[in-house]
Amino acid sequence: MKVLHIDASARQSRSHTRRLSALFIEELRRSCPDLSVIRRDLALSPPPFVSEKWIAAAFTNEELRTEEMRHTLRVSDELIDELLASDLYVFGLPMYNFSVPAAFKSYIDQIIRVGRTFSFQPEQPESYKGLIQRKTAVLIAARGDSGYGPDGPHWSKNHLEPYVSDVLRFVGVTSIKTVAVENDEQGGLSLQQSIAAAAGALRAIAANLSPALLRSA
Amino acid sequence: MKVLHIDASARQSRSHTRRLSALFIEELRRSCPDLSVIRRDLALSPPPFVSEKWIAAAFTNEELRTEEMRHTLRVSDELIDELLASDLYVFGLPMYNFSVPAAFKSYIDQIIRVGRTFSFQPEQPESYKGLIQRKTAVLIAARGDSGYGPDGPHWSKNHLEPYVSDVLRFVGVTSIKTVAVENDEQGGLSLQQSIAAAAGALRAIAANLSPALLRSA
Repeated sequence: MKVLHIDASARQSRSHTRRLSALFIEELRRSCPDLSVIRRDLALSPPPFVSEKWIAAAFTNEELRTEEMRHTLRVSDELIDELLASDLYVFGLPMYNFSVPAAFKSYIDQIIRVGRTFSFQPEQPESYKGLIQRKTAVLIAARGDSGYGPDGPHWSKNHLEPYVSDVLRFVGVTSIKTVAVENDEQGGLSLQQSIAAAAGALRAIAANLSPALLRSA
Repeated sequence: MKVLHIDASARQSRSHTRRLSALFIEELRRSCPDLSVIRRDLALSPPPFVSEKWIAAAFTNEELRTEEMRHTLRVSDELIDELLASDLYVFGLPMYNFSVPAAFKSYIDQIIRVGRTFSFQPEQPESYKGLIQRKTAVLIAARGDSGYGPDGPHWSKNHLEPYVSDVLRFVGVTSIKTVAVENDEQGGLSLQQSIAAAAGALRAIAANLSPALLRSA
């Protein structure tokens, strides 16, 4: 069983999402000691922005691509290979200005590829089809303020979990769990409680996931 | 009167948003020949991703910042100076994977700055306050598919205009106009009609804007 572990926080230290994604991997290792983890740190190695050349290459049929086009898609291919090879995705995603960090958007723009992660058949009733099947994603979010959860007053301004979930569903990933830390700016007890609740939720997800993932191994 | 004209499409040619943002500027020039335009091409010059150093510098009081911190915030300061110096923002924004291109998210992450574009006073009832007043933004969007408008079946998956509007409102910009081209993938008549409707809407916005902007000049 393989896990793709991605962190997107610009902070190496003092990052809630990094600490919690690491805790979650630890929990998984407890029930699955031979866990294989592919690690991506988007702050240290942000994917390049897609370019005009990238778009031209991605929309050229594979067998017609030049050597240069294949080179242009190399990072995208590598990131997609990792997605396809993994059973479980663990994404640490701090909210920056109501959505994901730009480095994670750059990652999204690299992995959504016709013929690789989705198919497009305009003559079909469902013209788009996700090509990533039987995967689970765990999104670990964090935001300085509070009230951005589904029952909170700022939910409509939350373009992180709803957004990333839409992207994942588009490529076929339907099993999506989300956990969030709030109150970083308030600090104190409200932050401690939020972290403890998120850690508890992650332990429960790990406990529920492991048997299924072990069976798939 | 000053306009900030930003294009974010990775495509230089065949870009609906570039063509329409250029048309809109042309229309404005017709009624305001001495229009001053600040131009940003985020595909040619994408802003850097915010880093751990950037965050530390941005959250340090201005008078306590080291020379290195000031250097780290140089791009951000320049982009914010342009925003504050302009009366009207024209953003050409193709939809990439349900949201803005990553290069535009990187731009957003650079311009949302405490003390410069918003203030944070936790003791106030409204702890966040936008610092950009009396500006108008025109968002010109484009998407390959259809149905992503407010009345369309895919509206909930549109994380472009609703998202950018939330960001703009956060910094105090409340006058926001949006125009979108759809049907690029279908092509033919449905695309032509969508482009014509968007161009018409932009001409109407330009005609309505100009007197007010001329007064402010």
